[in-house]
Amino acid sequence: MEKQIAKHFMINKNLPVPLYYQLKAQLLELLKEGVFQPGDKLPTEAEFCELLDISRPTVRQAFLELINEGYITRMKAKGTFVAKPKIEGFFFQRLSSFDEEMRSLHLTPSTSVLVSEIIATPEICHEAFEQSARVFHLERLRFADEQPMVLVNTYVPYERFQGIEQFDFESVSLYDIMDQKYHTPIIYVDRSVEARNAPQREAKLLEIDPQQALMHVKTCAYNEQDEVMELSIADYRGDRNQFKMRLMNKES
Amino acid sequence: MEKQIAKHFMINKNLPVPLYYQLKAQLLELLKEGVFQPGDKLPTEAEFCELLDISRPTVRQAFLELINEGYITRMKAKGTFVAKPKIEGFFFQRLSSFDEEMRSLHLTPSTSVLVSEIIATPEICHEAFEQSARVFHLERLRFADEQPMVLVNTYVPYERFQGIEQFDFESVSLYDIMDQKYHTPIIYVDRSVEARNAPQREAKLLEIDPQQALMHVKTCAYNEQDEVMELSIADYRGDRNQFKMRLMNKES
Repeated sequence: MEKQIAKHFMINKNLPVPLYYQLKAQLLELLKEGVFQPGDKLPTEAEFCELLDISRPTVRQAFLELINEGYITRMKAKGTFVAKPKIEGFFFQRLSSFDEEMRSLHLTPSTSVLVSEIIATPEICHEAFEQSARVFHLERLRFADEQPMVLVNTYVPYERFQGIEQFDFESVSLYDIMDQKYHTPIIYVDRSVEARNAPQREAKLLEIDPQQALMHVKTCAYNEQDEVMELSIADYRGDRNQFKMRLMNKES
Repeated sequence: MEKQIAKHFMINKNLPVPLYYQLKAQLLELLKEGVFQPGDKLPTEAEFCELLDISRPTVRQAFLELINEGYITRMKAKGTFVAKPKIEGFFFQRLSSFDEEMRSLHLTPSTSVLVSEIIATPEICHEAFEQSARVFHLERLRFADEQPMVLVNTYVPYERFQGIEQFDFESVSLYDIMDQKYHTPIIYVDRSVEARNAPQREAKLLEIDPQQALMHVKTCAYNEQDEVMELSIADYRGDRNQFKMRLMNKES
Protein backbone atom coordinates (compact mmCIF):
# COMPACT_ATOMS: atom_id res chain seq x y z
CA MET A 1 0.00 0.00 0.00
CA GLU A 2 1.27 3.43 -0.83
CA LYS A 3 2.45 5.60 2.04
CA GLN A 4 0.23 8.40 0.80
CA ILE A 5 -2.86 6.25 1.35
CA ALA A 6 -1.69 5.19 4.82
CA LYS A 7 -1.58 8.78 5.98
CA HIS A 8 -5.40 8.97 5.70
CA PHE A 9 -5.83 6.38 8.44
CA MET A 10 -5.43 6.78 12.16
CA ILE A 11 -6.22 3.64 14.12
CA ASN A 12 -6.17 4.35 17.85
CA LYS A 13 -5.96 1.23 20.02
CA ASN A 14 -6.75 3.22 23.19
CA LEU A 15 -10.16 4.38 22.02
CA PRO A 16 -13.24 2.50 23.28
CA VAL A 17 -14.28 2.06 19.62
CA PRO A 18 -13.62 -1.38 18.03
CA LEU A 19 -10.64 -1.28 15.66
CA TYR A 20 -12.58 -2.76 12.77
CA TYR A 21 -15.14 0.00 13.19
CA GLN A 22 -12.47 2.71 13.12
CA LEU A 23 -11.07 1.27 9.90
CA LYS A 24 -14.53 0.93 8.37
CA ALA A 25 -15.54 4.51 9.29
CA GLN A 26 -12.30 5.94 7.92
CA LEU A 27 -12.56 3.95 4.70
CA LEU A 28 -16.13 5.17 4.27
CA GLU A 29 -14.97 8.73 4.80
CA LEU A 30 -12.36 8.34 2.04
CA LEU A 31 -15.00 6.90 -0.31
CA LYS A 32 -17.28 9.85 0.37
CA GLU A 33 -14.48 12.37 -0.12
CA GLY A 34 -13.63 10.70 -3.42
CA VAL A 35 -10.05 9.77 -2.43
CA PHE A 36 -11.08 6.33 -3.69
CA GLN A 37 -13.30 6.38 -6.78
CA PRO A 38 -15.75 3.72 -8.05
CA GLY A 39 -13.71 1.06 -9.81
CA ASP A 40 -10.47 1.83 -7.89
CA LYS A 41 -8.62 -1.16 -6.49
CA LEU A 42 -8.21 -1.11 -2.71
CA PRO A 43 -5.09 -2.27 -0.87
CA THR A 44 -5.33 -5.95 0.10
CA GLU A 45 -6.23 -7.17 3.57
CA ALA A 46 -2.60 -8.12 4.13
CA GLU A 47 -1.42 -4.67 3.11
CA PHE A 48 -3.82 -2.99 5.52
CA CYS A 49 -2.65 -5.32 8.33
CA GLU A 50 0.98 -4.50 7.78
CA LEU A 51 0.75 -0.78 7.36
CA LEU A 52 -1.75 -0.09 10.12
CA ASP A 53 -0.42 -2.80 12.44
CA ILE A 54 -3.81 -4.42 12.95
CA SER A 55 -4.91 -8.06 12.75
CA ARG A 56 -6.35 -9.87 9.75
CA PRO A 57 -9.79 -10.49 11.40
CA THR A 58 -10.03 -6.75 12.08
CA VAL A 59 -9.47 -5.86 8.44
CA ARG A 60 -11.72 -8.71 7.31
CA GLN A 61 -14.61 -7.53 9.49
CA ALA A 62 -14.36 -3.98 8.13
CA PHE A 63 -14.22 -5.30 4.55
CA LEU A 64 -17.14 -7.68 5.13
CA GLU A 65 -19.42 -4.95 6.40
CA LEU A 66 -18.50 -2.59 3.58
CA ILE A 67 -19.09 -5.35 1.02
CA ASN A 68 -22.36 -6.17 2.73
CA GLU A 69 -23.48 -2.54 2.58
CA GLY A 70 -22.52 -2.31 -1.08
CA TYR A 71 -19.63 0.16 -0.81
CA ILE A 72 -16.89 -2.18 -1.96
CA THR A 73 -16.92 -5.38 -3.98
CA ARG A 74 -14.64 -8.39 -4.48
CA MET A 75 -13.72 -9.61 -7.92
CA LYS A 76 -12.50 -13.18 -8.18
CA ALA A 77 -8.71 -13.39 -8.41
CA LYS A 78 -8.52 -9.65 -8.98
CA GLY A 79 -8.93 -8.01 -5.59
CA THR A 80 -11.27 -5.64 -3.79
CA PHE A 81 -12.61 -2.57 -5.55
CA VAL A 82 -14.70 0.46 -4.75
CA ALA A 83 -18.19 -0.56 -5.85
CA LYS A 84 -20.13 1.16 -8.55
CA PRO A 85 -23.63 2.19 -7.41
CA LYS A 86 -25.99 -0.73 -6.77
CA ILE A 87 -28.08 -1.84 -9.67
CA GLU A 88 -31.50 -0.35 -9.13
CA GLY A 89 -33.90 -2.79 -10.68
CA PHE A 90 -37.63 -2.54 -11.01
CA PHE A 91 -38.26 -6.30 -11.12
CA PHE A 92 -40.75 -5.88 -8.28
CA GLN A 93 -42.77 -3.21 -10.00
CA ARG A 94 -43.00 -4.20 -13.62
CA LEU A 95 -42.31 -7.25 -15.70
CA SER A 96 -39.21 -6.64 -17.75
CA SER A 97 -36.40 -8.83 -18.95
CA PHE A 98 -32.96 -8.85 -17.38
CA ASP A 99 -31.45 -7.55 -20.62
CA GLU A 100 -33.92 -4.65 -20.83
CA GLU A 101 -33.28 -3.63 -17.21
CA MET A 102 -29.51 -3.73 -17.62
CA ARG A 103 -29.55 -1.77 -20.86
CA SER A 104 -31.80 0.89 -19.34
CA LEU A 105 -29.08 1.29 -16.70
CA HIS A 106 -26.37 1.54 -19.38
CA LEU A 107 -24.87 -1.77 -18.33
CA THR A 108 -23.91 -4.52 -20.75
CA PRO A 109 -25.88 -7.70 -20.03
CA SER A 110 -24.62 -11.16 -20.88
CA THR A 111 -25.76 -14.68 -20.10
CA SER A 112 -24.03 -18.02 -19.60
CA VAL A 113 -26.15 -21.14 -19.97
CA LEU A 114 -24.87 -23.60 -17.34
CA VAL A 115 -27.51 -26.32 -17.75
CA SER A 116 -29.99 -27.04 -20.54
CA GLU A 117 -31.72 -30.40 -20.14
CA ILE A 118 -35.00 -32.27 -20.32
CA ILE A 119 -35.67 -34.08 -17.07
CA ALA A 120 -38.43 -35.88 -15.16
CA THR A 121 -40.46 -33.20 -13.36
CA PRO A 122 -38.60 -32.58 -10.09
CA GLU A 123 -40.40 -32.23 -6.78
CA ILE A 124 -40.01 -28.47 -6.76
CA CYS A 125 -42.33 -28.29 -9.80
CA HIS A 126 -44.97 -30.82 -8.76
CA GLU A 127 -47.45 -28.23 -7.66
CA ALA A 128 -46.91 -25.92 -10.63
CA PHE A 129 -46.88 -28.56 -13.37
CA GLU A 130 -49.32 -31.22 -12.28
CA GLN A 131 -49.92 -32.47 -15.79
CA SER A 132 -46.39 -32.57 -17.05
CA ALA A 133 -44.16 -35.63 -16.72
CA ARG A 134 -41.08 -33.85 -18.02
CA VAL A 135 -39.70 -30.32 -17.80
CA PHE A 136 -37.14 -28.33 -19.70
CA HIS A 137 -34.62 -27.13 -17.12
CA LEU A 138 -32.43 -24.14 -17.90
CA GLU A 139 -29.84 -22.73 -15.55
CA ARG A 140 -28.42 -19.34 -16.47
CA LEU A 141 -25.85 -17.11 -14.86
CA ARG A 142 -26.48 -13.50 -15.83
CA PHE A 143 -23.91 -10.75 -15.82
CA ALA A 144 -23.83 -6.96 -15.87
CA ASP A 145 -20.60 -5.54 -17.23
CA GLU A 146 -19.08 -9.03 -16.80
CA GLN A 147 -19.82 -9.22 -13.06
CA PRO A 148 -22.22 -12.04 -12.08
CA MET A 149 -25.50 -10.61 -10.79
CA VAL A 150 -28.04 -13.41 -10.64
CA LEU A 151 -28.27 -17.19 -11.00
CA VAL A 152 -31.59 -18.29 -12.50
CA ASN A 153 -33.03 -21.81 -12.59
CA THR A 154 -35.99 -22.02 -14.93
CA TYR A 155 -38.45 -24.91 -15.42
CA VAL A 156 -40.90 -25.16 -18.30
CA PRO A 157 -43.47 -27.96 -18.86
CA TYR A 158 -41.88 -29.83 -21.75
CA GLU A 159 -45.06 -31.27 -23.28
CA ARG A 160 -46.20 -27.69 -24.01
CA PHE A 161 -42.87 -26.54 -25.40
CA GLN A 162 -41.38 -29.49 -27.24
CA GLY A 163 -38.12 -28.66 -28.97
CA ILE A 164 -37.54 -25.56 -26.84
CA GLU A 165 -34.09 -26.87 -25.94
CA GLN A 166 -32.91 -26.03 -29.45
CA PHE A 167 -32.97 -22.26 -28.85
CA ASP A 168 -29.88 -20.43 -27.72
CA PHE A 169 -30.87 -18.85 -24.43
CA GLU A 170 -27.61 -16.95 -24.22
CA SER A 171 -29.05 -14.62 -26.84
CA VAL A 172 -32.86 -14.97 -26.95
CA SER A 173 -35.51 -14.27 -24.32
CA LEU A 174 -37.59 -17.15 -22.96
CA TYR A 175 -40.83 -15.14 -22.99
CA ASP A 176 -40.22 -14.05 -26.59
CA ILE A 177 -39.75 -17.68 -27.64
CA MET A 178 -42.87 -18.79 -25.75
CA ASP A 179 -44.89 -16.04 -27.38
CA GLN A 180 -43.51 -16.12 -30.92
CA LYS A 181 -42.73 -19.80 -31.44
CA TYR A 182 -45.35 -21.45 -29.23
CA HIS A 183 -48.11 -18.79 -29.35
CA THR A 184 -48.18 -18.72 -25.57
CA PRO A 185 -47.79 -15.18 -24.29
CA ILE A 186 -47.16 -14.73 -20.57
CA ILE A 187 -49.97 -12.59 -19.14
CA TYR A 188 -48.85 -12.14 -15.54
CA VAL A 189 -46.42 -13.49 -12.98
CA ASP A 190 -46.63 -14.11 -9.24
CA ARG A 191 -43.38 -13.42 -7.46
CA SER A 192 -42.24 -14.15 -3.93
CA VAL A 193 -39.11 -12.69 -2.40
CA GLU A 194 -36.98 -13.78 0.54
CA ALA A 195 -33.54 -12.92 1.89
CA ARG A 196 -31.24 -15.95 2.22
CA ASN A 197 -27.63 -16.73 2.97
CA ALA A 198 -25.76 -18.03 -0.07
CA PRO A 199 -25.17 -21.81 -0.12
CA GLN A 200 -21.69 -22.94 -1.27
CA ARG A 201 -22.50 -23.56 -4.92
CA GLU A 202 -24.46 -20.35 -5.44
CA ALA A 203 -21.72 -18.34 -3.71
CA LYS A 204 -19.05 -19.82 -5.94
CA LEU A 205 -20.96 -19.12 -9.15
CA LEU A 206 -21.88 -15.58 -8.07
CA GLU A 207 -18.28 -14.96 -6.90
CA ILE A 208 -19.23 -13.97 -3.36
CA ASP A 209 -18.42 -15.40 0.07
CA PRO A 210 -20.57 -18.27 1.32
CA GLN A 211 -23.29 -17.02 3.69
CA GLN A 212 -23.39 -13.59 2.03
CA ALA A 213 -27.00 -12.41 1.72
CA LEU A 214 -28.94 -13.16 -1.46
CA MET A 215 -32.32 -12.02 -2.67
CA HIS A 216 -34.12 -15.28 -3.42
CA VAL A 217 -36.94 -14.68 -5.91
CA LYS A 218 -39.44 -17.31 -7.04
CA THR A 219 -41.59 -16.53 -10.06
CA CYS A 220 -44.59 -18.37 -11.52
CA ALA A 221 -45.57 -17.14 -14.98
CA TYR A 222 -49.11 -17.69 -16.25
CA ASN A 223 -50.75 -17.90 -19.67
CA GLU A 224 -54.23 -16.66 -20.63
CA GLN A 225 -55.83 -19.77 -19.12
CA ASP A 226 -54.16 -19.16 -15.74
CA GLU A 227 -51.91 -22.17 -16.23
CA VAL A 228 -48.32 -22.03 -15.01
CA MET A 229 -46.00 -21.93 -18.02
CA GLU A 230 -42.76 -21.27 -16.18
CA LEU A 231 -41.36 -21.63 -12.70
CA SER A 232 -38.11 -19.85 -11.96
CA ILE A 233 -35.87 -19.46 -8.95
CA ALA A 234 -33.47 -16.52 -9.08
CA ASP A 235 -30.71 -15.72 -6.59
CA TYR A 236 -29.59 -12.09 -6.82
CA ARG A 237 -26.37 -10.94 -5.16
CA GLY A 238 -27.50 -8.83 -2.22
CA ASP A 239 -24.42 -6.63 -2.36
CA ARG A 240 -25.00 -5.52 -5.96
CA ASN A 241 -28.75 -5.34 -6.37
CA GLN A 242 -31.45 -3.08 -5.04
CA PHE A 243 -35.08 -3.26 -6.05
CA LYS A 244 -37.34 -0.24 -6.15
CA MET A 245 -41.06 0.24 -6.21
CA ARG A 246 -43.70 2.90 -5.66
CA LEU A 247 -46.91 2.14 -3.76
CA MET A 248 -49.98 4.36 -3.67
CA ASN A 249 -51.92 4.75 -0.43
CA LYS A 250 -55.44 3.79 -1.44
CA GLU A 251 -56.93 5.13 1.76
CA SER A 252 -56.03 8.75 1.19
CA MET B 1 -33.24 -37.31 22.55
CA GLU B 2 -35.78 -40.07 22.64
CA LYS B 3 -34.75 -43.40 21.17
CA GLN B 4 -37.90 -43.41 19.08
CA ILE B 5 -36.77 -40.30 17.27
CA ALA B 6 -33.28 -41.65 16.71
CA LYS B 7 -34.63 -44.61 14.80
CA HIS B 8 -35.74 -42.29 12.00
CA PHE B 9 -32.15 -41.35 11.22
CA MET B 10 -29.53 -43.33 9.41
CA ILE B 11 -26.25 -41.50 8.96
CA ASN B 12 -23.87 -43.48 6.77
CA LYS B 13 -20.26 -42.35 6.96
CA ASN B 14 -19.28 -44.46 3.96
CA LEU B 15 -21.58 -42.69 1.52
CA PRO B 16 -20.06 -40.03 -0.75
CA VAL B 17 -22.76 -37.63 0.56
CA PRO B 18 -21.69 -35.07 3.21
CA LEU B 19 -22.92 -36.05 6.69
CA TYR B 20 -24.59 -32.69 7.30
CA TYR B 21 -26.52 -33.15 4.07
CA GLN B 22 -27.70 -36.62 5.09
CA LEU B 23 -28.96 -35.23 8.40
CA LYS B 24 -30.59 -32.27 6.70
CA ALA B 25 -32.35 -34.43 4.08
CA GLN B 26 -33.61 -36.86 6.72
CA LEU B 27 -34.85 -34.06 8.97
CA LEU B 28 -36.65 -32.52 6.00
CA GLU B 29 -38.25 -35.86 5.24
CA LEU B 30 -39.55 -36.10 8.83
CA LEU B 31 -40.96 -32.59 8.61
CA LYS B 32 -42.75 -33.45 5.38
CA GLU B 33 -44.12 -36.69 6.81
CA GLY B 34 -45.39 -34.76 9.82
CA VAL B 35 -43.34 -36.73 12.38
CA PHE B 36 -42.36 -33.27 13.58
CA GLN B 37 -45.16 -30.70 13.50
CA PRO B 38 -44.97 -26.88 13.33
CA GLY B 39 -44.19 -25.63 16.83
CA ASP B 40 -42.56 -28.91 17.98
CA LYS B 41 -39.25 -28.58 19.80
CA LEU B 42 -36.36 -30.38 18.12
CA PRO B 43 -33.60 -32.24 19.96
CA THR B 44 -30.63 -29.96 20.68
CA GLU B 45 -27.43 -29.95 18.63
CA ALA B 46 -25.68 -31.76 21.46
CA GLU B 47 -28.36 -34.46 21.59
CA PHE B 48 -28.07 -35.06 17.85
CA CYS B 49 -24.27 -35.29 18.15
CA GLU B 50 -24.44 -37.88 20.86
CA LEU B 51 -27.14 -40.10 19.50
CA LEU B 52 -26.01 -40.13 15.88
CA ASP B 53 -22.29 -40.03 16.69
CA ILE B 54 -21.58 -37.03 14.49
CA SER B 55 -19.69 -33.79 15.15
CA ARG B 56 -21.12 -30.49 16.31
CA PRO B 57 -20.20 -28.60 13.09
CA THR B 58 -22.06 -31.27 11.11
CA VAL B 59 -25.25 -30.76 13.10
CA ARG B 60 -24.79 -27.01 13.08
CA GLN B 61 -24.48 -26.88 9.29
CA ALA B 62 -27.67 -28.92 8.84
CA PHE B 63 -29.52 -26.70 11.34
CA LEU B 64 -28.19 -23.50 9.73
CA GLU B 65 -29.40 -24.45 6.27
CA LEU B 66 -32.81 -25.49 7.55
CA ILE B 67 -33.14 -22.23 9.51
CA ASN B 68 -32.01 -20.34 6.47
CA GLU B 69 -34.60 -22.06 4.29
CA GLY B 70 -37.31 -21.34 6.85
CA TYR B 71 -38.06 -24.94 7.94
CA ILE B 72 -36.91 -24.58 11.54
CA THR B 73 -36.43 -21.57 13.79
CA ARG B 74 -34.46 -20.75 16.93
CA MET B 75 -36.12 -19.12 19.92
CA LYS B 76 -33.84 -17.33 22.33
CA ALA B 77 -33.08 -19.44 25.41
CA LYS B 78 -35.81 -21.90 24.45
CA GLY B 79 -34.36 -24.10 21.71
CA THR B 80 -34.97 -24.97 18.09
CA PHE B 81 -38.49 -25.54 16.81
CA VAL B 82 -40.22 -26.62 13.64
CA ALA B 83 -41.13 -23.32 11.96
CA LYS B 84 -44.63 -22.23 11.23
CA PRO B 85 -45.11 -21.23 7.59
CA LYS B 86 -43.29 -18.02 6.61
CA ILE B 87 -45.23 -14.83 6.96
CA GLU B 88 -46.41 -13.96 3.49
CA GLY B 89 -46.57 -10.20 3.42
CA PHE B 90 -47.74 -7.93 0.64
CA PHE B 91 -45.66 -4.92 1.72
CA PHE B 92 -44.28 -4.80 -1.82
CA GLN B 93 -47.63 -4.73 -3.49
CA ARG B 94 -49.84 -2.49 -1.43
CA LEU B 95 -49.37 -0.02 1.36
CA SER B 96 -50.67 -1.56 4.55
CA SER B 97 -49.65 -1.33 8.17
CA PHE B 98 -47.74 -4.06 10.00
CA ASP B 99 -50.71 -4.62 12.31
CA GLU B 100 -53.16 -4.99 9.40
CA GLU B 101 -50.91 -7.49 7.63
CA MET B 102 -50.39 -9.59 10.74
CA ARG B 103 -54.07 -9.64 11.63
CA SER B 104 -55.01 -10.65 8.08
CA LEU B 105 -52.70 -13.65 8.61
CA HIS B 106 -54.34 -14.46 11.98
CA LEU B 107 -51.19 -13.54 13.85
CA THR B 108 -51.15 -11.29 16.90
CA PRO B 109 -49.04 -8.17 16.27
CA SER B 110 -47.29 -6.27 19.02
CA THR B 111 -44.76 -3.45 19.12
CA SER B 112 -41.96 -2.45 21.48
CA VAL B 113 -40.75 1.14 21.26
CA LEU B 114 -36.97 1.01 21.83
CA VAL B 115 -36.14 4.65 21.10
CA SER B 116 -38.32 7.76 20.94
CA GLU B 117 -36.29 10.97 20.73
CA ILE B 118 -35.94 14.35 19.07
CA ILE B 119 -32.48 14.73 17.56
CA ALA B 120 -30.51 16.91 15.18
CA THR B 121 -31.20 15.64 11.66
CA PRO B 122 -28.72 12.80 11.13
CA GLU B 123 -26.78 12.38 7.90
CA ILE B 124 -29.00 9.55 6.73
CA CYS B 125 -31.90 12.04 6.48
CA HIS B 126 -30.08 14.99 4.91
CA GLU B 127 -31.35 14.33 1.44
CA ALA B 128 -34.93 13.59 2.50
CA PHE B 129 -35.37 16.45 4.97
CA GLU B 130 -33.40 19.35 3.55
CA GLN B 131 -35.42 21.94 5.43
CA SER B 132 -35.59 20.32 8.80
CA ALA B 133 -32.99 20.89 11.52
CA ARG B 134 -34.45 18.29 13.86
CA VAL B 135 -36.19 14.95 13.42
CA PHE B 136 -38.34 12.73 15.57
CA HIS B 137 -36.61 9.35 15.70
CA LEU B 138 -38.59 6.27 16.59
CA GLU B 139 -37.15 2.78 16.80
CA ARG B 140 -39.65 -0.04 17.04
CA LEU B 141 -39.28 -3.79 17.28
CA ARG B 142 -42.38 -5.48 15.91
CA PHE B 143 -43.55 -8.97 16.78
CA ALA B 144 -45.94 -11.57 15.38
CA ASP B 145 -47.17 -14.01 18.01
CA GLU B 146 -44.38 -12.74 20.29
CA GLN B 147 -41.58 -13.60 17.85
CA PRO B 148 -39.58 -10.57 16.62
CA MET B 149 -40.14 -10.03 12.90
CA VAL B 150 -38.81 -6.60 11.98
CA LEU B 151 -36.79 -3.75 13.45
CA VAL B 152 -37.93 -0.36 12.14
CA ASN B 153 -36.12 2.97 12.47
CA THR B 154 -38.37 5.86 11.52
CA TYR B 155 -37.45 9.52 11.03
CA VAL B 156 -40.00 12.35 10.74
CA PRO B 157 -39.21 16.07 10.17
CA TYR B 158 -39.92 17.50 13.62
CA GLU B 159 -40.82 21.04 12.55
CA ARG B 160 -43.82 19.58 10.68
CA PHE B 161 -44.91 17.29 13.49
CA GLN B 162 -44.20 19.10 16.73
CA GLY B 163 -45.36 17.20 19.78
CA ILE B 164 -45.54 13.88 17.90
CA GLU B 165 -43.34 12.28 20.59
CA GLN B 166 -46.31 12.36 22.98
CA PHE B 167 -48.19 9.59 21.14
CA ASP B 168 -47.82 5.99 22.21
CA PHE B 169 -46.51 4.23 19.12
CA GLU B 170 -46.86 0.84 20.75
CA SER B 171 -50.59 1.16 20.10
CA VAL B 172 -51.21 3.79 17.40
CA SER B 173 -50.19 3.93 13.74
CA LEU B 174 -47.81 6.64 12.58
CA TYR B 175 -49.73 7.29 9.35
CA ASP B 176 -53.02 7.58 11.26
CA ILE B 177 -51.48 10.17 13.59
CA MET B 178 -50.00 12.12 10.66
CA ASP B 179 -53.34 12.13 8.90
CA GLN B 180 -55.71 12.71 11.81
CA LYS B 181 -53.66 14.94 14.13
CA TYR B 182 -51.50 16.83 11.62
CA HIS B 183 -53.78 16.77 8.53
CA THR B 184 -50.96 15.28 6.50
CA PRO B 185 -52.11 12.13 4.75
CA ILE B 186 -49.43 9.98 3.12
CA ILE B 187 -50.24 9.71 -0.58
CA TYR B 188 -47.55 7.31 -1.78
CA VAL B 189 -44.28 5.72 -0.74
CA ASP B 190 -41.11 4.82 -2.60
CA ARG B 191 -39.53 1.66 -1.34
CA SER B 192 -36.16 0.05 -2.01
CA VAL B 193 -35.26 -3.47 -1.00
CA GLU B 194 -31.93 -5.18 -0.49
CA ALA B 195 -30.73 -8.43 1.08
CA ARG B 196 -28.15 -7.90 3.84
CA ASN B 197 -26.36 -9.90 6.50
CA ALA B 198 -27.47 -8.99 10.01
CA PRO B 199 -25.05 -6.75 11.95
CA GLN B 200 -24.51 -7.67 15.63
CA ARG B 201 -27.07 -5.32 17.16
CA GLU B 202 -29.85 -6.10 14.69
CA ALA B 203 -29.22 -9.84 15.09
CA LYS B 204 -29.45 -9.61 18.86
CA LEU B 205 -32.71 -7.66 18.81
CA LEU B 206 -34.27 -9.93 16.18
CA GLU B 207 -33.02 -13.04 18.05
CA ILE B 208 -31.14 -14.49 15.11
CA ASP B 209 -27.50 -15.37 14.49
CA PRO B 210 -25.22 -12.55 13.32
CA GLN B 211 -24.76 -12.69 9.55
CA GLN B 212 -28.16 -14.32 8.99
CA ALA B 213 -29.85 -12.77 5.95
CA LEU B 214 -32.19 -9.81 6.40
CA MET B 215 -34.50 -8.02 4.03
CA HIS B 216 -33.41 -4.39 4.33
CA VAL B 217 -36.25 -2.08 3.24
CA LYS B 218 -35.99 1.67 2.97
CA THR B 219 -39.20 3.67 2.60
CA CYS B 220 -39.79 7.34 1.79
CA ALA B 221 -43.38 8.46 2.37
CA TYR B 222 -44.72 11.53 0.54
CA ASN B 223 -47.52 14.03 1.17
CA GLU B 224 -49.71 15.69 -1.48
CA GLN B 225 -46.96 18.24 -2.24
CA ASP B 226 -44.45 15.46 -2.97
CA GLU B 227 -42.49 16.32 0.16
CA VAL B 228 -40.92 13.51 2.19
CA MET B 229 -42.81 13.19 5.48
CA GLU B 230 -41.16 10.01 6.72
CA LEU B 231 -38.01 8.03 6.13
CA SER B 232 -37.89 4.52 7.53
CA ILE B 233 -35.38 1.70 7.50
CA ALA B 234 -36.81 -1.74 8.25
CA ASP B 235 -34.86 -4.97 8.73
CA TYR B 236 -37.04 -8.06 8.30
CA ARG B 237 -35.85 -11.47 9.43
CA GLY B 238 -35.16 -13.36 6.23
CA ASP B 239 -35.99 -16.70 7.79
CA ARG B 240 -39.52 -15.69 8.78
CA ASN B 241 -40.69 -13.33 6.07
CA GLN B 242 -41.63 -13.72 2.45
CA PHE B 243 -43.02 -10.96 0.28
CA LYS B 244 -45.41 -11.59 -2.55
CA MET B 245 -46.54 -9.61 -5.52
CA ARG B 246 -48.28 -10.01 -8.87
CA LEU B 247 -47.03 -8.26 -11.99
CA MET B 248 -48.96 -7.90 -15.23
CA ASN B 249 -47.15 -8.23 -18.54
CA LYS B 250 -48.03 -5.01 -20.29
CA GLU B 251 -46.70 -6.24 -23.60
CA SER B 252 -49.23 -9.00 -24.01
